[in-house]
Amino acid sequence: MAYAIGLDFGTNSVRCLIVDVTNGGELGTAVYGYETGHEGIILDSSDHNLARQNPADYIKGLEVSIKKAISEAKKANEDFDASRIIGIGIDTTGSTPIPVDKDGTPLGMLDEFKDNPNAQAWLWKDHTGYAEAAEITELAAKEHPEYLAKCGGTYSSEWFFSKILHCLRTDPKVFDAAYSWVECADFVPAVLTGITAPEAIKRSRCASGHKAMFANDWGGLPAKEFLAKLDPKLGELRDRLYDKTDTIDVAAGKLTQQLAEKLALPAGIPVAVGAFDAHLGGVGSGIAPGKLVKIIGTSTCDMIVSEPGQQLPDVPGICGIVDGSILPGVYGLEAGQSAVGDIFNWFVNYIEPGGKSQGSHEALTDKAAKLKPGQSGLLALDWNNGNRTILVDQRLTGLLIGQTLHTKPEEIYRALIEATAFGALTIINRVEEYGVKVTEVINCGGIAEKNPLIMQIYADVTGREMKISRSAQSCALGAAIAGAVVAGKKTGGYDNCPDAQAAMCGVKETTFEPITENHKVYRQLYALYKQLHDAFGLESFSGKMANVMKELLDIKDKANV
Amino acid sequence: MAYAIGLDFGTNSVRCLIVDVTNGGELGTAVYGYETGHEGIILDSSDHNLARQNPADYIKGLEVSIKKAISEAKKANEDFDASRIIGIGIDTTGSTPIPVDKDGTPLGMLDEFKDNPNAQAWLWKDHTGYAEAAEITELAAKEHPEYLAKCGGTYSSEWFFSKILHCLRTDPKVFDAAYSWVECADFVPAVLTGITAPEAIKRSRCASGHKAMFANDWGGLPAKEFLAKLDPKLGELRDRLYDKTDTIDVAAGKLTQQLAEKLALPAGIPVAVGAFDAHLGGVGSGIAPGKLVKIIGTSTCDMIVSEPGQQLPDVPGICGIVDGSILPGVYGLEAGQSAVGDIFNWFVNYIEPGGKSQGSHEALTDKAAKLKPGQSGLLALDWNNGNRTILVDQRLTGLLIGQTLHTKPEEIYRALIEATAFGALTIINRVEEYGVKVTEVINCGGIAEKNPLIMQIYADVTGREMKISRSAQSCALGAAIAGAVVAGKKTGGYDNCPDAQAAMCGVKETTFEPITENHKVYRQLYALYKQLHDAFGLESFSGKMANVMKELLDIKDKANV
Repeated sequence: MAYAIGLDFGTNSVRCLIVDVTNGGELGTAVYGYETGHEGIILDSSDHNLARQNPADYIKGLEVSIKKAISEAKKANEDFDASRIIGIGIDTTGSTPIPVDKDGTPLGMLDEFKDNPNAQAWLWKDHTGYAEAAEITELAAKEHPEYLAKCGGTYSSEWFFSKILHCLRTDPKVFDAAYSWVECADFVPAVLTGITAPEAIKRSRCASGHKAMFANDWGGLPAKEFLAKLDPKLGELRDRLYDKTDTIDVAAGKLTQQLAEKLALPAGIPVAVGAFDAHLGGVGSGIAPGKLVKIIGTSTCDMIVSEPGQQLPDVPGICGIVDGSILPGVYGLEAGQSAVGDIFNWFVNYIEPGGKSQGSHEALTDKAAKLKPGQSGLLALDWNNGNRTILVDQRLTGLLIGQTLHTKPEEIYRALIEATAFGALTIINRVEEYGVKVTEVINCGGIAEKNPLIMQIYADVTGREMKISRSAQSCALGAAIAGAVVAGKKTGGYDNCPDAQAAMCGVKETTFEPITENHKVYRQLYALYKQLHDAFGLESFSGKMANVMKELLDIKDKANV
Repeated sequence: MAYAIGLDFGTNSVRCLIVDVTNGGELGTAVYGYETGHEGIILDSSDHNLARQNPADYIKGLEVSIKKAISEAKKANEDFDASRIIGIGIDTTGSTPIPVDKDGTPLGMLDEFKDNPNAQAWLWKDHTGYAEAAEITELAAKEHPEYLAKCGGTYSSEWFFSKILHCLRTDPKVFDAAYSWVECADFVPAVLTGITAPEAIKRSRCASGHKAMFANDWGGLPAKEFLAKLDPKLGELRDRLYDKTDTIDVAAGKLTQQLAEKLALPAGIPVAVGAFDAHLGGVGSGIAPGKLVKIIGTSTCDMIVSEPGQQLPDVPGICGIVDGSILPGVYGLEAGQSAVGDIFNWFVNYIEPGGKSQGSHEALTDKAAKLKPGQSGLLALDWNNGNRTILVDQRLTGLLIGQTLHTKPEEIYRALIEATAFGALTIINRVEEYGVKVTEVINCGGIAEKNPLIMQIYADVTGREMKISRSAQSCALGAAIAGAVVAGKKTGGYDNCPDAQAAMCGVKETTFEPITENHKVYRQLYALYKQLHDAFGLESFSGKMANVMKELLDIKDKANV
């Protein structure tokens, strides 16, 4: 009997999950909500782009949640023995960079900067660096198009260098005080292992490859001259960042004596290099070559890996293709839809058709389930929050077509579900076109678990069986798998991820098979979806419709000044 | 002091209005709801295309409503004297043809046929003849394109010959028993004047020109050989129809002694030739060269006339261009939008955002009024019920674009209002392109009177002042004007329509001026509306989007089989 700990640092809270490494059984879990700011996020009412976090919350969070999860595990299993915990893995949000001093202490934890949000963790959804993102994209397009080719052609305001450059431009005092910057995914293992000096911290392949343009092809991070052209000081910073990254099967170090005592854990157990939540969610859902993992929530993350030894071309519109970012030894591909559950939530919460009760998810789902594919004559695009994959364009918006004088709310609701399914199919088709096979689809997240109609429509639209991951905590489970792998077989863990996944992951018994006649109708509807998709989404469309959504947004922006 | 009677035969009821011819003052009015069928319409639960009416209801209706209106006028004005009524005018729905025997008696009023809906009046919105309409369109396109050029390129299932041919094909017994067919607009004057023999009835220029392809250019009705190719019996019927039509300034005859006694009216007063409701609504609203009259209800009718002596080309997409159909001596142009109020009703009644109270017209209008043009980022097409002018295509559907995760119901409501305004502007632009000036816009109908927001948006979108017709009963007022004109100046009436209109019509004091900054934004939005309009509405669009709505409807039709 051996256990591993998975720590899942989310947007509002951290979850600790204790897992039986022999079968993936979940023994105890606990959640700690970050204390600083609004639901753990430091906001600025005068700038809706700003979203920061207090790094001290991460430290307190890991301590509180581990303690509580152990106590839960003990409550639930009288023979639970914390001394059998053999390793710890970590997943976090990202890109969530933190400015740190020479010792690796976050500037926000120093008295001098404690009230300055720029000295805190820059949460993934902070968009203050949008202008800098455009600047980086423009320079890279001109001088190093290869940097962009692996991240979908556009460097995002959510990513590492956009945030750091924005800090440099707007708060040079913080920038100058920062000896280096570390991702949250690197910071947590550093705290656990006590290896906090920026030069010594093992950096996450996943975080750097997806968000910091890191690739061995061009010698790691973007060239010093490139960064210096954005700003000489950014060029200088590169020397204080890193040249090497590691995958999740590598130990970042060992748990410190001090924390082991404090948390009643065995001292010296290995702590895995961190990775992003969705990527370890993929691992926890059993990702493997050919197995697409869809994490479906307010938005989706679609995780795919290449075959071992397969060389991948750039895949247009796929935001990240990084060697070892999900599973060591194969390319990880990260795709996603900017809104899925959020679109249904919009319809229910903002439009609320027929009022609260008639317009609930449950009521609309019940009625929508009675409709046949195609019966409403409606078709929608799933772009209410832009399109991440495959168009990589935030300035796209929703579209609904086919309304008559008799169109009912449940027909629109179903059309919105179908739209997200068509968006999902578009991602599958794109990666397959470029040689990445998708032979199995494993879904996880609340929507996948709770809404069989959505899963059936996804099966009918894609013509593929939809499976559901067995664990409801697939990110934390993935982190625990990393913990079991860095522990190794000799201590009761595993020597590699696939072995650990084989033992610790699974899918639910109920799966959703495509219904042939529905799939037939959806093939026709998908052709029309793709026609609208290309017309409104691609500059290259012959009919020149791609201006419409953009111009509407321009007019809207002006009207709202 | 002299009075005229206007009789307005609507879809569910007939209204009688007694008007002071000196100033248009409305002295008394009464409505009679037809008794047969559902709200006056004979329906068939197995065929939703069928809509018929009992001609006996028209006869009873005119008697009851005239009597009641006189009694109302007496109640309201103690010096009212019915002997000063100098003329009667009539407007009706159409095309609403009635099969009649040699004496002009509707077959449905004969014992033999009284239970056969095919022997009754075929109400304007009966669509049973859709296949025959397509057949007529096809033959005319091949052999007589000029027949179609004046009616927008497509002969409608709502029109005269579609209905008669459908009767011939499906109920030859009725067809064979019919000596002739008369429009409702011709039948009512026939009843009032006692001139009921089909050869003797004066036929409405308006009805025949707009719905029966009548034009003096090709010798009246379509050629006998043309009709005979559709069916030899239809060719034979042509000899029993008519070769001459008249405008509303011509008397159909004089009120019979019998009816005068029954209704306590002066015997022998002239009865004007009938016309369609919308056309006389134009007259009652003060239509004149340059003055567009918009009758805004669930749908709109847009009425325009040419300059005297102006020769008009065919105007693509304008369903009717008929010499004298509205005002004698000038061309009448009939355009319209298939749904206006009906689109707002759909959103309120079917979507009911936030429930009954929050989702009412009043609540949504209040909130929508607070929005600035362009602020929502939304744009809609007003095609939920197809597009009449300028695309003449029933198989078009709605479209909404620009939704985000924060789009609110009032934003959609306003976008729908704006869409109908853009549709209205498209009609104005089209007639102006072809040389018909629009220097003034007069609105009438419930929406125009009750919703200042809509009128302001129409002003802002079109960049034109919106005026509201003074009378809430502009169709009946237009009919009364015809009555005053056939009475002539010698009896206290007028010698022509413009003189009568100058005295009897007017607009309300409150008008709606365009707000410059709003118009500026709407010009930008209209460019995008027109782009979507052409892309989805025109086969000739380079980007080939015109298939989308059609294919969705095809898929829908199949799914609903």
